[in-house]
Amino acid sequence: MEYSKSVKNRLQRVNGQLQGILRMIEEERDCVEVVTQLSAIKSALDRTVGLVVSENLERCVRESVQSGESTDEHVQQAVKLLMKSR
Amino acid sequence: MEYSKSVKNRLQRVNGQLQGILRMIEEERDCVEVVTQLSAIKSALDRTVGLVVSENLERCVRESVQSGESTDEHVQQAVKLLMKSR
Amino acid sequence: MEYSKSVKNRLQRVNGQLQGILRMIEEERDCVEVVTQLSAIKSALDRTVGLVVSENLERCVRESVQSGESTDEHVQQAVKLLMKSR
Amino acid sequence: MEYSKSVKNRLQRVNGQLQGILRMIEEERDCVEVVTQLSAIKSALDRTVGLVVSENLERCVRESVQSGESTDEHVQQAVKLLMKSR
Repeated sequence: MEYSKSVKNRLQRVNGQLQGILRMIEEERDCVEVVTQLSAIKSALDRTVGLVVSENLERCVRESVQSGESTDEHVQQAVKLLMKSR
Repeated sequence: MEYSKSVKNRLQRVNGQLQGILRMIEEERDCVEVVTQLSAIKSALDRTVGLVVSENLERCVRESVQSGESTDEHVQQAVKLLMKSR
Repeated sequence: MEYSKSVKNRLQRVNGQLQGILRMIEEERDCVEVVTQLSAIKSALDRTVGLVVSENLERCVRESVQSGESTDEHVQQAVKLLMKSR
Repeated sequence: MEYSKSVKNRLQRVNGQLQGILRMIEEERDCVEVVTQLSAIKSALDRTVGLVVSENLERCVRESVQSGESTDEHVQQAVKLLMKSR
């Protein structure tokens, strides 16, 4: 699958945030600050999962419509993938 | 939206589980048991959310295909709804 | 364990919300409304889990302090229980 | 706060996993594989949060016990931090 610029940018930002946390750990920063940053990365990853699944499902549904196939299975698989990634 | 038998059955089971927890609280049962049951209900509600969104999205996509409309917006709304319900 | 009035009240409210959702399902209400209510119950259950674990851990730690025992294991078990209930 | 070797090792592994995902995105790998890896990182971050909060709460409770202060507030803050990081 070809991933959009938006997906790539999000993951680059997550990467930057993670490097920031690694520094905070070395600097022995306060636990509440570190946990807050860890939670922020988790939320960013969550939104990235939503974007990847949404972009992929849109494409799969369009392709099925063009080839006259049923779209139900694609929808079920995408929802299952999102539920598993919770 | 018409909800399937499967959605209705799941919610009835959750209702039964919740009545069970209310009794456990009155009986002052062990906290680990109560928390385990509360988590089980949360997971059951989670799966019910997935089923409701999946059934609804399948129907919306089919209707859009029949009327020749784009399906993208339905997909994006469904994924957004699932992400918000995490 | 004896559960506080606050825990009991929260669960009674969840019970009321669940009965409300069962009616919404019968009335074939819009899927977004139903999913929003299901998510609200999940969040309420989540906060109840936090309250139950917090009240229990406070008591266990106090009892350990009075009997001169280590508190570490109680803390680890409580955190493990919270993580498992995510 | 001084962070344990275990916390540091976990975050280094997460860092490695994230670099792996960035490569998978460039290689346009299958969306299910990428989402599975993103979920794995989320779970690893989750467990790291649990470890950081647990280690910090153990230390805070011990210090309170030694200085004869109440431990309740530390417990409540730690549970609140864990609930917020869900």
